[in-house]
Amino acid sequence: MKTGCGIVTLLTDFGPGMYCAAMKAVILNVAPYVRIVDVCHTVSPQNITEAAFVLRSVAGNFSPGTVHCVVVDPGVGTSRRIILAEGGDYFFLAPDNGVLTLSLETFGAGRAWSVENDAFFRKPVSRTFHGRDIFAPVAAELAAGARPEAFGPEIDAEAMVKHLLPEPVVGRNEIEGHLVFIDGFGNLVSNISEKELSAMGPHDELAVEFQGHRLAGINATYGDARRGEALALIGSLGLLEIAVARGSAAARFPAAEGDRIVVRRAP
Amino acid sequence: MKTGCGIVTLLTDFGPGMYCAAMKAVILNVAPYVRIVDVCHTVSPQNITEAAFVLRSVAGNFSPGTVHCVVVDPGVGTSRRIILAEGGDYFFLAPDNGVLTLSLETFGAGRAWSVENDAFFRKPVSRTFHGRDIFAPVAAELAAGARPEAFGPEIDAEAMVKHLLPEPVVGRNEIEGHLVFIDGFGNLVSNISEKELSAMGPHDELAVEFQGHRLAGINATYGDARRGEALALIGSLGLLEIAVARGSAAARFPAAEGDRIVVRRAP
Amino acid sequence: MKTGCGIVTLLTDFGPGMYCAAMKAVILNVAPYVRIVDVCHTVSPQNITEAAFVLRSVAGNFSPGTVHCVVVDPGVGTSRRIILAEGGDYFFLAPDNGVLTLSLETFGAGRAWSVENDAFFRKPVSRTFHGRDIFAPVAAELAAGARPEAFGPEIDAEAMVKHLLPEPVVGRNEIEGHLVFIDGFGNLVSNISEKELSAMGPHDELAVEFQGHRLAGINATYGDARRGEALALIGSLGLLEIAVARGSAAARFPAAEGDRIVVRRAP
Repeated sequence: MKTGCGIVTLLTDFGPGMYCAAMKAVILNVAPYVRIVDVCHTVSPQNITEAAFVLRSVAGNFSPGTVHCVVVDPGVGTSRRIILAEGGDYFFLAPDNGVLTLSLETFGAGRAWSVENDAFFRKPVSRTFHGRDIFAPVAAELAAGARPEAFGPEIDAEAMVKHLLPEPVVGRNEIEGHLVFIDGFGNLVSNISEKELSAMGPHDELAVEFQGHRLAGINATYGDARRGEALALIGSLGLLEIAVARGSAAARFPAAEGDRIVVRRAP
Repeated sequence: MKTGCGIVTLLTDFGPGMYCAAMKAVILNVAPYVRIVDVCHTVSPQNITEAAFVLRSVAGNFSPGTVHCVVVDPGVGTSRRIILAEGGDYFFLAPDNGVLTLSLETFGAGRAWSVENDAFFRKPVSRTFHGRDIFAPVAAELAAGARPEAFGPEIDAEAMVKHLLPEPVVGRNEIEGHLVFIDGFGNLVSNISEKELSAMGPHDELAVEFQGHRLAGINATYGDARRGEALALIGSLGLLEIAVARGSAAARFPAAEGDRIVVRRAP
Repeated sequence: MKTGCGIVTLLTDFGPGMYCAAMKAVILNVAPYVRIVDVCHTVSPQNITEAAFVLRSVAGNFSPGTVHCVVVDPGVGTSRRIILAEGGDYFFLAPDNGVLTLSLETFGAGRAWSVENDAFFRKPVSRTFHGRDIFAPVAAELAAGARPEAFGPEIDAEAMVKHLLPEPVVGRNEIEGHLVFIDGFGNLVSNISEKELSAMGPHDELAVEFQGHRLAGINATYGDARRGEALALIGSLGLLEIAVARGSAAARFPAAEGDRIVVRRAP
C-alpha cells in the first residue's frame, strides 16, 4: 500500500497570494514537516482543461507518494464530491470535475475514495473555500502518512466525472489538432503528440499550418532557428508546439486555446 | 511566554522576485531550519490598507508561535519605528505605520517592543532595504526561539500608529460600506460583515446596490448562480463580496477600492 | 574544499508555474532535504543581462555553500556548455553564456567544471528542458554534498563566455551611465555605483539628468521626498536609482533598459 512521502503539491487558480498562503498555513499546522511545492497558481480561473494539462505534465516528476492537490473548483459549495485517487505512484486530491482524468490515464488509475470524513476538516467548513478547510488538512494528513481509506468510502473510479482533452484527428495525410495550452514563454502547445507525428513520416518532411502560416519541418530544438523565426518543434511535454526562437509565439500570433493546427506531409 | 514555532511568513509589496529572495537568504543564513511561507508579495505598492486586510485574513490560519513579518513600509529610512507585537498566539513584526492595527484588534493585542537592538541586524544596515537588514534577521531569530524582549525596549501598545478600515455605516434599513479589496479571482470584497448583514434580516430579503446595479439576495455560495451571473455573497473572509459566477466581477464592473456599496432590505 | 550546504536557489525566465515546479520535483526526488529558494522567475525571456544583474545582487546574501542555479538559456539544445563554477563561498550552475560573469567578478572566481557526466542526469534528457533534466539533478546532488569534480572535467575559467554590463563613462565633470534594471517597485536602476558618485563630489552637489529631466542631489532614502516627487538615490544594491516617492518611476517615465542617464556636478 502506497503512503505519503511528506510532499504536497498545490495547483490552483487562486493567483499567487493570500488564498494559497491560507492553504499552506493549514497544511503546516496539521503536519509541520510536510514539504509544499507550488505547481501553478495562475491557471485561468476555473479552466479545468488547463489545470488537467498542467497536472499531467508535471506530476510525474515528483517522488513516489507525493500528494498532488488540485483546487480548480467551479462547483465549490455545491454537492460536487471531493475525490482522493491513486494514480501510478501518486495520490491525487481534487474536486470531482474531471481535472484528474488525463493524469489517471497517464499514470494509471488505482483505487479512489470520496472525501467525506469531516473529522479531518478545518471547522467551520466555509462554503466558498474548501481549499483551506478540506483540501489542505486532508492533503497534509495524507502526506504525513494517514491511510487513504481514512478519509471516506471507496468509490468506483469509473463513476468519477470525466474530462478529456480533444483528441487530434489523424487522417492518412494530415493530423488536425488544437492548441491546448500557452506556456510561460508564449509557446503554443498543441494536443498532437510526438508519436502521432512520427507515424506520419520523417519530421523534416512534415509541415505545420496555423492561422494561414506554414512552418516547414518539425525542429528538434529552439537552437536550430534564427532569432525571431517561427518554428514547429516537439516540446519538453512530448507535444507539438509552435514557438518563436528567442521570442514569444503568443505575442506573434493572436492565438487562443482551441485554435486549429494541422500537420501535413510536405508535398 | 509565547515562543517562535519555526515559521516565518512574509507579506510585502516587493513583487515576486529578488527582494523577497534576499530576505529569505538572510533568514536561512540566521536560522537554517526556519520554514518560510509567502503570504503575498503583490500588495499594491505602499498600500497599508490592503496589506492590513490581507494580514488579518490569513494570519489566523497559521500555527501558534508563527512570526508574521510585514514589510509594506513607505517610511523606510525615516525615523519610523519597527514594532514587534504579540497578537493572540502570534508575533507580528512590521513598521509602525498601522499595518498591524486590524490584526491586533482581531487576535487580541499583547505586549509590544520597539526593535532597536542592532546586534541582531545585518550590517551595514542600508537606508532603503530594512526588509533584508532588520526584518529578516529579527524574524529568523524570533522564529528560532529568541525572546521578544531581546530586540528592544517594551513600548505602550496604545502608542503605536493606528490605521483602521473604514467602518460601514449601519442605518435602520440600510448598510453603507465600501470595497476594501479585490481578490485574485476579481471578487469585490467589502467591509460589510456577515454579522452586520444578519442583523438587517434574512439574507434572501436583502439587496445589494453597486454602481447602479441591484443584486437581490445574499447567496451562500458561487454554485447557486448561473455562469456569468453577478451575485452578492458572504466570502470565505466573512465579508460581503460581489462576484460573477465562473467569472470576474472586477472584469465586469470598473471597480476600485473605496467604491460605495449599499445593502438594503428588499421592498 | 567547499561543499553544498543544502540550499539551492533558482533563477529562471520560466515565469512562475509548471516549469519551475518540474525542476523542484526533480530536486526533491534526488535530495529530499534540500531547501529551495526562488530567486526570480520573471526575468525577461532570455535576457542574460537582467539575469546576471539579479544574480549578482542577491547571491551574496545566502549561506556559504549555497548552489545558485541559473536557467536563462537561449542556447538550450545547442552545443553550449553547462558550467559549474565556484564563486566566493558559492557554487554557480548555469549555461556558458556569460550570465555568471558579473557574479564571478564580484564574489571572486574559483575553479570551474564543464557539466558532462550524464550519470547524474534525468533520463531521457530532452533537448528543450535542461532545467529539469540536467540543472535540477546536478544542483540537488551538489547541494547534498557531491564534490564538484564529479560532474565533469575541470575547465579554464578564462575560457568561459563573458558577458559584461556596460561600464559607465566617467569624465571630469560628469558620469554617463545607463539603466540596467527596472525593479518591482518601478525604480530605475543604473550601472553607476556609489563609489563613482562619491568620487565626483558631495552627493548634494550632484545632479542627475534623465530624459530631459534634472534631479538635483542624490538622496539617501525614499523618505526624504514628498509623495509623488521624483528623486535620485543610492538603492540597496549600491547603485544610483531614479525613484518616485511612494510611486513608480517606471510609470512616470517611459523608460527602458539601456536608456542614458548622466550625473553632473551641479553648477
